[in-house]
Amino acid sequence: MQVPKGFSFNAVEAGIKYQGRPDVGLIFSEKPSFWSGVFTKNDVKAAPVILGLERLRKQSKIRAILVNSGCANACTGEAGLRDAEIVLTELAKNLNLSPEEILPASTGVIGSRLPVKKILAILPDLVEELSPDRAALVARAMMTTDTFPKIVSRKIKTQNTEITLLGLAKGAGMIAPNMATMLAFILTDAKIPSHKLRQWLAEAVEFSFNRITVDGDTSTNDTVYLLANGLAGEVSGKEEELFKEALFEISRELAYLIVKDGEGATKTVKIRVEGARSEEEALKLARAAADSPLVKTAFFGEDPNWGRIMVALGKLGLGLVPEKINIFINDIPLVKGGLATDKEDLAQKEMARPEFTVKIELGMGAADAEILTCDLSKEYVKINAEYRT
Amino acid sequence: MQVPKGFSFNAVEAGIKYQGRPDVGLIFSEKPSFWSGVFTKNDVKAAPVILGLERLRKQSKIRAILVNSGCANACTGEAGLRDAEIVLTELAKNLNLSPEEILPASTGVIGSRLPVKKILAILPDLVEELSPDRAALVARAMMTTDTFPKIVSRKIKTQNTEITLLGLAKGAGMIAPNMATMLAFILTDAKIPSHKLRQWLAEAVEFSFNRITVDGDTSTNDTVYLLANGLAGEVSGKEEELFKEALFEISRELAYLIVKDGEGATKTVKIRVEGARSEEEALKLARAAADSPLVKTAFFGEDPNWGRIMVALGKLGLGLVPEKINIFINDIPLVKGGLATDKEDLAQKEMARPEFTVKIELGMGAADAEILTCDLSKEYVKINAEYRT
Repeated sequence: MQVPKGFSFNAVEAGIKYQGRPDVGLIFSEKPSFWSGVFTKNDVKAAPVILGLERLRKQSKIRAILVNSGCANACTGEAGLRDAEIVLTELAKNLNLSPEEILPASTGVIGSRLPVKKILAILPDLVEELSPDRAALVARAMMTTDTFPKIVSRKIKTQNTEITLLGLAKGAGMIAPNMATMLAFILTDAKIPSHKLRQWLAEAVEFSFNRITVDGDTSTNDTVYLLANGLAGEVSGKEEELFKEALFEISRELAYLIVKDGEGATKTVKIRVEGARSEEEALKLARAAADSPLVKTAFFGEDPNWGRIMVALGKLGLGLVPEKINIFINDIPLVKGGLATDKEDLAQKEMARPEFTVKIELGMGAADAEILTCDLSKEYVKINAEYRT
Repeated sequence: MQVPKGFSFNAVEAGIKYQGRPDVGLIFSEKPSFWSGVFTKNDVKAAPVILGLERLRKQSKIRAILVNSGCANACTGEAGLRDAEIVLTELAKNLNLSPEEILPASTGVIGSRLPVKKILAILPDLVEELSPDRAALVARAMMTTDTFPKIVSRKIKTQNTEITLLGLAKGAGMIAPNMATMLAFILTDAKIPSHKLRQWLAEAVEFSFNRITVDGDTSTNDTVYLLANGLAGEVSGKEEELFKEALFEISRELAYLIVKDGEGATKTVKIRVEGARSEEEALKLARAAADSPLVKTAFFGEDPNWGRIMVALGKLGLGLVPEKINIFINDIPLVKGGLATDKEDLAQKEMARPEFTVKIELGMGAADAEILTCDLSKEYVKINAEYRT
C-alpha cells in the first residue's frame, strides 16, 4: 500500500459502541490541503454532514479528517451539532489548528448522542501517535457491519514527479444510489486547485459510489472527501487525465469493495442495461432490478429466475416491449425476445460463481448503464434485525 | 360464509406444480353477469391479463372465471396466448358458452408454458361438480406461497331484497402498490350496470389493494374481477352507498389478509403519514417507509429503530424538515421534533404485538395516507431463494 506524502494516520479505541477495536480515526496532512466533498442528498442530514457542508462553503483548505464509528450523530438536532463542535474544538487545540480546518465524519446508530467525554478522553493519544504507516488502522476504525477494511492506492508517474492516491472507505448497509451509505476518503499528494477537485470528484462519484446499491436506502451520513496537499508537486496538462483516471479507478474499486462487503452478501452482481432510449432510463431500469428483493433473493438462491427480472423492469411502466428483451447471465443467453431459452442450467452454473453480470438488452435505443449490487441473504435479515440489540 | 345467488364453484387437481391439492378453479354464474376488471400496470403482462383486457374492451357480460396456480403463463409470448385460448375454448364447450364469456387468471412461475394437456384432462371433472358450497375450494386452488385461503363475504339488506358479496383472493409474494401481485375475485348477486361496476371497483382497488406492499414488486398477473349477476335484484338510489361500503370493506379485508399472509411475514404494520402537503406526497412517503428493507427488518427484530424510518422518508429528497417530524408506535411517542424521546422500551413492547401502527407526523400540511405492509423476515429470503427449486 502506497501512502501519499505528508499524510499521517492514527486510530484508537474510545469504546463508543464496539469493544476491542479502534473506533475513532484521524487523518492529518502536514500541509494545508485543497479539498472537496460530496454528501448525502437525504433530507435528514447528520451533524457531521451539516458541518462538512458548512466547511465546503467557507473553507478553501483543510488539514485533517476525524472519523468515528458506532454513533452516526444523526437525528440529534442542535445538541448533536454542539457535540461535534466540542470534539472538533478540542482536537484542533491538540493539533494547533482552528476547528474549521478539520472535517468530521461519523457512522453508526442514528438518534443517539455522541459520547463526547469518551472521545475527548482519547484525543491526546490519537494525536500523539500519528504515523504514515497507520492508514489501515483508520480504515478499521471506520467499520460498522463491514467485515473487512477497504483501502486502495494508486501511483502515477508524471514528467517531474510521482503522485500517490490513497482511498479509504466503509460501507455494508444502507447503501443506495445518490451517495451510498458510506464514508470514503481519498488522499493525494498532488497539487490540484479546489475547483478542479470539485469537478473531478463529482464525476468520479457519479460513476462509482452513485452506481452501487446494497439495499436501496440512502443514509444520513454519506460523505466522500478528497484531499490534495500538493507535496508531490503539480499535475497539469495531459497529466490531468492520468490523475483523473487514477481517481476514477480508486473510486470504482472502493465502490466495488463496498458492494462485495454488503451486509450478508454472498454474490457481487453487475446489472448492465443496454439498448435504452436514454442513459437515465437505462440507469432507472438497472436500479429497479438491482433493488428488487425478489431478484436479489434469486441471486442468493443461484436461481436463474428471469421472470423476476422482467417484473422488476416492467413495473416502472416505461413502455418496454417484452418481445424485444434479451437477458444474459455472463455470456449465457437466458431470455431471447422475451422468451425462455433452454440455457437455464448453464445460467445457473454462472450464478454459482461469487461474481457475475446480468446483461439486459432492451432493443429500444443506444444508451446503456450499469449498477453494481449484491444478493439478499438470510444473513442480511439477521444482521439488520439484530443490529442494535 | 355467504354465497351470492346463482354462483357455483369447483376446483380440482391438475398437477401443474403442486401435488395433493387443487390447482385449477372455476367460478360459474348461471346468469350472464355485468362485470369489471382491474389489471397490473406492469409493462410485462401475462397472457391471461392480455385476454382479460381484451374482454374488458369487448365483452359486456361474462359467465365464468377460470383460475390456475403453479404457472403464471407470463413471458410466454404468442404461444402463451394460444395456450390460454385452447383451454378457454375447451372449457367453453363443456359449459356451452363462447370462450369470450370466460375470464382467465393465472398465478405461479413466470416464463413456463401452461401445461395445456393436464388442464384439458381435468376440465370435465371441473364442470361436473360445480356447487354453491365449493367457493373455499377455489380460494385454495388459487394459492401459491399463501399459507391460508382468503375468502370474505358481506350481506346487505335493501328495501326489497338481500344482496350478498363474496370475495376470494390470493397474495403472498410480489406484492406492491399499483395492483399488488395478487388475484382477487368479488362476486355479487346485485344488479348493477357495468359503468358503475367500473367506477366503484376502481375506487375500491385504489384504497385497498393499491395501498398494500409486501416487497415492492408489481407482478405480471395482478387482476381483480368484479361480477354482478343481478339475481338478487337491483341496487339503486341510497342503497348504492350501502353496496359501495360493502364492496370497499371486502376489498380492504382481502387486502389486509394478503399482507397478513405476506411471504414470511410475522408482523402486519400500518404506516400512516399525516401532515403532508398533498395526499400523493403522504402516499409516497408511506410507501418509502413500507418498502425499505432496513425498516422491515427492524419490524421483524421488534426494534424501534426510528432512525431507519427517518432515512427512508428523507431519501426521497422531498424537502422534509426533520425538526418537525414526530413518530408514534401505536400511541407511544417515539420521536418528537426529529429527536428521540425516552419511550423506546414502551415502543418496543408495542412492536412485540403481531399488528401495530407507525404514525408519522410531518408538520407540513393537512394531507394524510396509509399503507399496509409486513416485516422482512429470514423466512421471506428462504421462501424466495428456494421458490423454484
